[in-house]
Amino acid sequence: MNYHKISREDILALKQIAEEKNLLTREQIGEDYSHDELGGITSYPDVLIRAGSTEEVSAVMKYAYDHNIPVVVRGSGTGLVGAAVALYGGIMLETTQMNRILELDEENLTVTVEPGVLLMELAQFAQDHDFLYPPDPGEKSATIGGNISTNAGGMRAVKYGVTRDYVRALTVVLPTGEIVELGGKIVKNSSGYSLKDLMIGSEGTLGIITKAVLKLVPLPQKSISLLIPYPSMEMAIEAVPEIIRSKSAPTAIEFMERETILFAEEYLGKKFPDTQSDAYLLLTFDGSSLSQVEAEYDRTAKLCLSQGALDVLLVDTDERKDSVWSARSAFLEAIKASTTEMDECDVVVPRNHVAEFIKYTHQLAREIDIRIPSFGHAGDGNLHVYICRDDLSLEVWQEKLTLAFEKMYERANELGGAVSGEHGIGYAKQAFLEQQVGEAQIRLMQGIKQVFDPKGLLNPGKVVCGAAALIR
Amino acid sequence: MNYHKISREDILALKQIAEEKNLLTREQIGEDYSHDELGGITSYPDVLIRAGSTEEVSAVMKYAYDHNIPVVVRGSGTGLVGAAVALYGGIMLETTQMNRILELDEENLTVTVEPGVLLMELAQFAQDHDFLYPPDPGEKSATIGGNISTNAGGMRAVKYGVTRDYVRALTVVLPTGEIVELGGKIVKNSSGYSLKDLMIGSEGTLGIITKAVLKLVPLPQKSISLLIPYPSMEMAIEAVPEIIRSKSAPTAIEFMERETILFAEEYLGKKFPDTQSDAYLLLTFDGSSLSQVEAEYDRTAKLCLSQGALDVLLVDTDERKDSVWSARSAFLEAIKASTTEMDECDVVVPRNHVAEFIKYTHQLAREIDIRIPSFGHAGDGNLHVYICRDDLSLEVWQEKLTLAFEKMYERANELGGAVSGEHGIGYAKQAFLEQQVGEAQIRLMQGIKQVFDPKGLLNPGKVVCGAAALIR
Repeated sequence: MNYHKISREDILALKQIAEEKNLLTREQIGEDYSHDELGGITSYPDVLIRAGSTEEVSAVMKYAYDHNIPVVVRGSGTGLVGAAVALYGGIMLETTQMNRILELDEENLTVTVEPGVLLMELAQFAQDHDFLYPPDPGEKSATIGGNISTNAGGMRAVKYGVTRDYVRALTVVLPTGEIVELGGKIVKNSSGYSLKDLMIGSEGTLGIITKAVLKLVPLPQKSISLLIPYPSMEMAIEAVPEIIRSKSAPTAIEFMERETILFAEEYLGKKFPDTQSDAYLLLTFDGSSLSQVEAEYDRTAKLCLSQGALDVLLVDTDERKDSVWSARSAFLEAIKASTTEMDECDVVVPRNHVAEFIKYTHQLAREIDIRIPSFGHAGDGNLHVYICRDDLSLEVWQEKLTLAFEKMYERANELGGAVSGEHGIGYAKQAFLEQQVGEAQIRLMQGIKQVFDPKGLLNPGKVVCGAAALIR
Repeated sequence: MNYHKISREDILALKQIAEEKNLLTREQIGEDYSHDELGGITSYPDVLIRAGSTEEVSAVMKYAYDHNIPVVVRGSGTGLVGAAVALYGGIMLETTQMNRILELDEENLTVTVEPGVLLMELAQFAQDHDFLYPPDPGEKSATIGGNISTNAGGMRAVKYGVTRDYVRALTVVLPTGEIVELGGKIVKNSSGYSLKDLMIGSEGTLGIITKAVLKLVPLPQKSISLLIPYPSMEMAIEAVPEIIRSKSAPTAIEFMERETILFAEEYLGKKFPDTQSDAYLLLTFDGSSLSQVEAEYDRTAKLCLSQGALDVLLVDTDERKDSVWSARSAFLEAIKASTTEMDECDVVVPRNHVAEFIKYTHQLAREIDIRIPSFGHAGDGNLHVYICRDDLSLEVWQEKLTLAFEKMYERANELGGAVSGEHGIGYAKQAFLEQQVGEAQIRLMQGIKQVFDPKGLLNPGKVVCGAAALIR
């Protein structure tokens, strides 16, 4: 692509738009900004701007549009598929200083936020006001802008759905610099094509989110988790469709293997309540009263015990809650710390095929002799599967990694799944997306990208822009 | 537009695709097919095909694409904005014979249906299997395909959301005739732009829905309604934000005026439990146990009484349930029967502005001296407002109608609302959509239409295709 290379003149012009202290040039930009959390692809922006307002973002984008400069938006950089990496240099707009919670509207049950608010800040704010913001991805230091851009799901999707279900309105700066308001503080909408839903999950390729109105729900008064050990992962996961079929309505059903728990114990230096079993389910129930929650979990506990669970541990003390949930939140980091390098597969399959898929990863690990730990959301079919390099040579690692990815995505396709449940396509998964959805859908997505971004300036090379061969 | 006019040759060719008994030519097509339920715009298709399968729809569409023939899809024809009218003639594909419920999947909590299944059939099927399909629009004889095409909301949106929230997957025939599968039996998805969400609410302009996988929820074991009389409509509706603020979670909050109830009594020949008051709220609560439901409605009943409600009538006997809900379902027909002609405004506003908007319609009715009854979903801000012609001359009626629409949509815009909550834009509301969303969004929507349908064959002249001036 023939982008304009940023010059000193451009930087002077951009300093007229952004405050000087919020504009960093190439030599001032830290290494962190050249990659995301998984670090598989590396490239520096030429200029980093810490955005302060919608108007400023609009002015920067307008300048970039007029001068043919690529623009990449970045939140906290916690992504895993390279979506926030400036493949073609240009301008990186960081949203972390746009981090104000602007309004709580208790009559419309909404909270209005800037995109740089962190998930943990929003969760705490909601709770302090007796509300719940249901989406609950493991990475609490991600920004809300990032969560919306990947349609992040998190642990409570079983009962509450995903980020998409909680976005009422978005203020978006288009690649032309125009500002549009999508949706509103309204519960229903049938007014033209849902541009808001197109923006959600578009990973910063169609527009820049500068404000979001999010739906809240009343805070459930009681919440209790059950930790349920099983003799094997297969047995644990095979219990999940039975739980669903029994019309139990848990908030979350997570699965975890002993190996991963041990890594987390080591990583955190903290004990998990039980590590004697090979596999565990972690179920959460919430509701408006203790008796309601008890009735629900009691029925489910009995069902699990009748289906081969070894025990049911109530996670009801603060200490247990802390040890279980801090471990759960640390799984990604713990696996990362256990190996030299890793890559991730974030497939989602229908929930009655989770057991089959996990079995397949075990079989694959033996077949190609590579370590493939996993954890994830058994209740919603979204798995986080890690392929670990350990002590393999670069050549062997790349060969095995490619093979493992190909096989796993192929299997997920066969089971009616999708490439990504919540981490997105970004740079890394484009070929697999094409395999999954086929040529017609890719053509439509590329057409949509062209409509929003005719000059191809916004986050180029991502999602459906097939930049693999084009990186400078 | 330069469409090919259907010839005898085309009809012979189409008879090779569809069964002869399912293909009707112009002279065989009944008057019903020239308009929808509100009947504001009239035009006949040249050929009517009762579609039998995805493959058949694909073959018809492919033929139309190759021969430049417009295609309009129609379900039960219960629309109110002319979306299913064949403005340019051509082929009408009717889906009512594709009416099978294909699968109930109790492990993934989904039901798979053809588009011609009626809402009431699906609701009954779900209930018979101890599930709930939550979307509950008043028009029970609409098809599911139609509900998806308008993102219909219905009465339970307060608690359960709208049709969009229950669509897991769609099989869609594109304007080229290609068949694509959007989404899946998966709970999370972050795999490219959400074409599924673009299709939902696109009113048959982007593709033809031939199969849908819908999400179900366990059937709440108890459901109870409260009918709450108020001395005035303002007082009734002003109670709603207070109910929401109290963190009560009703399934539905409907409002109704005495005048509308009296029309319904007359129309149905059936008594309503109470008609002494000017205005009523109808609240429903559901849950897993009677005690839970009682606790919820008890708290809300007390709140309403403390805020000026005259009484709280429990709708708990079958007789009362029938009289209240059959009246509620008949409001549209009853208002229609009370006048010579009418048009509808389906605005949605933030729910704390409903009272203000209703007050405004009352004021407007006085100002321009025209009758404007209304009813609707106070709990989710979606109002159904009817402008009645009564005995006005055509000229005066058109003048007053235009003025009333302009004023009401303008007011809705000022309040942060949208043109349509659930009935769509269709043919009738295009100018108001443009006023609401502005030029940039219309440009994006038109671009998207062009990407999906480069020849402009599918449901031309609707949503964003500005056909007002082009009708033959």
